[in-house]
Amino acid sequence: MTQYTVAVLGATGLVGQKILEILEERNFPVKMLKPLASGKSAGKTISFQGHSYPVQEATPESFEGVDLVLASAGASVSEKLVPEAVKRGAVVVDNTSFFRLNDSVPLVVAGVNDEDLSWHQGIIANPNCSTAQLMPVFKKLHELGGLKRVIVSTYQSASGAGKKGMEELCDSTKAMVSSNFQDPGENKVFQRPLSFNLVPQIDKFLDDGYTKEEFKVIAETRKILHLPDLKITATAVRVPVLVGHSEAVTIDFDRPVSPEQAIAALKTVPEVVVSETPEAFPTPRDAEGIDPVLVGRIRRDTSNPETGLNLWIVADNLRIGAALNAVKIAEQLDKQGLIQSKSKFAEHV
Amino acid sequence: MTQYTVAVLGATGLVGQKILEILEERNFPVKMLKPLASGKSAGKTISFQGHSYPVQEATPESFEGVDLVLASAGASVSEKLVPEAVKRGAVVVDNTSFFRLNDSVPLVVAGVNDEDLSWHQGIIANPNCSTAQLMPVFKKLHELGGLKRVIVSTYQSASGAGKKGMEELCDSTKAMVSSNFQDPGENKVFQRPLSFNLVPQIDKFLDDGYTKEEFKVIAETRKILHLPDLKITATAVRVPVLVGHSEAVTIDFDRPVSPEQAIAALKTVPEVVVSETPEAFPTPRDAEGIDPVLVGRIRRDTSNPETGLNLWIVADNLRIGAALNAVKIAEQLDKQGLIQSKSKFAEHV
Repeated sequence: MTQYTVAVLGATGLVGQKILEILEERNFPVKMLKPLASGKSAGKTISFQGHSYPVQEATPESFEGVDLVLASAGASVSEKLVPEAVKRGAVVVDNTSFFRLNDSVPLVVAGVNDEDLSWHQGIIANPNCSTAQLMPVFKKLHELGGLKRVIVSTYQSASGAGKKGMEELCDSTKAMVSSNFQDPGENKVFQRPLSFNLVPQIDKFLDDGYTKEEFKVIAETRKILHLPDLKITATAVRVPVLVGHSEAVTIDFDRPVSPEQAIAALKTVPEVVVSETPEAFPTPRDAEGIDPVLVGRIRRDTSNPETGLNLWIVADNLRIGAALNAVKIAEQLDKQGLIQSKSKFAEHV
Repeated sequence: MTQYTVAVLGATGLVGQKILEILEERNFPVKMLKPLASGKSAGKTISFQGHSYPVQEATPESFEGVDLVLASAGASVSEKLVPEAVKRGAVVVDNTSFFRLNDSVPLVVAGVNDEDLSWHQGIIANPNCSTAQLMPVFKKLHELGGLKRVIVSTYQSASGAGKKGMEELCDSTKAMVSSNFQDPGENKVFQRPLSFNLVPQIDKFLDDGYTKEEFKVIAETRKILHLPDLKITATAVRVPVLVGHSEAVTIDFDRPVSPEQAIAALKTVPEVVVSETPEAFPTPRDAEGIDPVLVGRIRRDTSNPETGLNLWIVADNLRIGAALNAVKIAEQLDKQGLIQSKSKFAEHV
């Protein structure tokens, strides 16, 4: 079995730490680990598979001799450093939004469109968390009935904004509790205080009134499913939950699909666990720390009873939405012999 | 000006207290107040418009001499006591679900379908909170473009489940904070712990997989807007917010409607305040304690750009969703001379 020198870019962040945890959990063949972060975190130590590794400041030279990079240090860091890694012969699985809609970069959810890995040119993008968890469900339902139109309302946890987001929610909740529910605390990460509140803005606003988060759900779904004209819309809302994204989804199909057919089809998807009774609905608390996408409340859409369904889709946004998918992509690259690409893509950068 | 003997049934509950507050605030012509509650609360004292009133146990005889009843003590109490009040000549504004879909009972949102008050037979029903706040918006948009299809995802606060719901959310949040975010606390009111979590079940499940709450949004919207065949669906989710319901709504229109047209039209509705820029979106914290329905994030639906819009609709569920609407209905009944109905309906019961 080939063993790889693996760099984790953003190793001290919430997703970076989860990547390290999942690489260990799944026993990924790591010969040598390079935990990379900003200068602030350099000097910290990371314990991994029984070894101790110092965190190094990420520079272009950090990628010398690296086979595989798992990057989750933000879009501006990826913009700068990912081409440097590719130039030095590494293959990069990038968790940020920077390359996702680039036509020469495959955007992959493991188990959904692994076939797109074959045309990578050094970079594979990992989709946005709120998109990723929908994909195993949408792919199977598209095979079953043909996706005609999709309407998504998200209920996204604070951890989607990283450690700082979780800390801000915890701190503002403590402020509320200790002030007899009067003081909403400070907000810097979120546009409004999130404790006991909702913030219907995730990422910046675009000219059409959508947020970038909503745009990502729309554009990334179309790319991953190879449905460039899919009719899809989204409303993305931050909720006072620590971990776990939930999504209320309405689907119009090309052909009639009953709840029973949808349940039977989704039961065959390895990445999905379906609730067969209404009462067994999943909550974010159920999804935290586990791998599968949880689907419940599947029922006929009363506004389109012949060819429509409503669903409730929940997952751990840090796992399938980020770290787990990154590691699963790395496993697929390994299996398909797509990591040993040194110098193959370096010239393109 | 006629002054009325007013009974508030459920006077010690969350909505009952809000009704008393709003009756005072709006200076409703109360000659005498009868605060009624269960035996448990009898003997407490309520201060109202400078007078002190003892809380009495609600019995059929409590309604002797009463002109107007504002009832919010739950469906089973209304089932039993509302006919007794009507029999004794009172007019009842009922906040519970018991009579809402009864063909001989008007279901009214003040300012939306006041004309339905004229055919009341002693009982006027106040809709479910998640329905009520949508109505001033939907009515205006229906006039503008014709509602063809509506998809609603709700984000409903704990106060929708009354004082006990709010207390459970506060207690379970305290348990989380004091256990370093490990102990979710107890849940009796909600089907799962609500602190830092979501519960996609409000009220009981029906045979078709919908909850009663979702059914209410669907059936009550059709009745209030006089659109019995309206295509509408809903997903109702409890969120860890204390007060204020929010709803993400997708509307298909019969005719093209631009966001600018929708904003201009909604600006003419007295019950509505519209955000004209995306950044000025409303949150439940903004809605708490105020009367208007707040609407923001109005944008073209990317899955139906010609004739579709997405909206974000937020309101204080205890006010427009319950107490404020009850008092406004009472004001309309007074204005239209529809309270002086003694013995007119008594014989029908």
